[in-house]
Amino acid sequence: MPKISEEAKTERRERILAGARRCFARHGYNGATVVRLEEEIGLSRGAIFNWFATKEDLFLELATRDNNRINTIWVERGLEDTIRAIVEEDPDWLGVYLDVVHRLRTDAAFRERWDQRMPKEQENEIVARMKQEQAAGHLRSDLEPEQIGKFLGVVFDGLAVQRAAGYDPPLEVLLQLVTETLAPVRARTRARTSA
Amino acid sequence: MPKISEEAKTERRERILAGARRCFARHGYNGATVVRLEEEIGLSRGAIFNWFATKEDLFLELATRDNNRINTIWVERGLEDTIRAIVEEDPDWLGVYLDVVHRLRTDAAFRERWDQRMPKEQENEIVARMKQEQAAGHLRSDLEPEQIGKFLGVVFDGLAVQRAAGYDPPLEVLLQLVTETLAPVRARTRARTSA
Repeated sequence: MPKISEEAKTERRERILAGARRCFARHGYNGATVVRLEEEIGLSRGAIFNWFATKEDLFLELATRDNNRINTIWVERGLEDTIRAIVEEDPDWLGVYLDVVHRLRTDAAFRERWDQRMPKEQENEIVARMKQEQAAGHLRSDLEPEQIGKFLGVVFDGLAVQRAAGYDPPLEVLLQLVTETLAPVRARTRARTSA
Repeated sequence: MPKISEEAKTERRERILAGARRCFARHGYNGATVVRLEEEIGLSRGAIFNWFATKEDLFLELATRDNNRINTIWVERGLEDTIRAIVEEDPDWLGVYLDVVHRLRTDAAFRERWDQRMPKEQENEIVARMKQEQAAGHLRSDLEPEQIGKFLGVVFDGLAVQRAAGYDPPLEVLLQLVTETLAPVRARTRARTSA
């Protein structure tokens, strides 16, 4: 058997993931059958499941990458760009997340894997970044970073629903209200009174 | 054929709706087959579809009632009680809404019926109520009621996702941030500086 180079391995893996993402987006999580995954990826089930043991593994790897990407945008470019990145996401793909919401509540093993998408180091990095922003007076400091994160989680999920439903989210108002409400008292009062 | 009294008609209709709601919550929108609707409601398909022509009609009637109920809470009891009502809703039932999100974007006829759930008079009533609140200095007046409504729509959808996924939404932080951000400038500054 010929030895496959690392480069070829990476390429194969990326090809499988890209095809799986298209397949999930097109058919939904439940509609992405093995036959359809084969068609969209252009490889046999044997070749696909050699790299990812199950359909769930494929989805979780894609969701982990999304999570990393969004967190990187947040840490490097801030909240506004994060919200814009969610709004610009493919609505079909966002809809796949809604397909698994019910399983998150009813399938404990899936829930646990889902919650592990975000590595502890990344979570720490985000908390550290928020604390820096609080110390620098750019983020309100009367709430814990965890509380702010949970609030933003609700906003992000709501945005995903509206995009998946084909509505234009009220982007400018949302950016204004969210950044305002997370600003320290003085900055916010200034913004409001000068408006 | 015996004549059915108005009371008996109402009772029959309510029984069908209550059973359909349980069936949707238990099996999801797509899983609520005619056989399962018959089982859960305890009536034959002929008896059920004599009252509601299609499964879609059943769902839209239930969604319209939810919408009326939530709007009434909003107008009569305010934002905090509205958010609490969403959080207290059955997570299985909230999940049914996520099942139809994709159709809202891809099925124009369904989308149009969905958008008509909210009668124009009710929308006017809510806008009038918001304008009253603005005039009384209880609601920020630098945004249009429609903009405020869209912002709240994102928050409500996000809450529904988190509940359907079995997460405890950050209720107290959310209530604090949302009421604060919608308060007029002075009230908000006072709340923040005295905290």
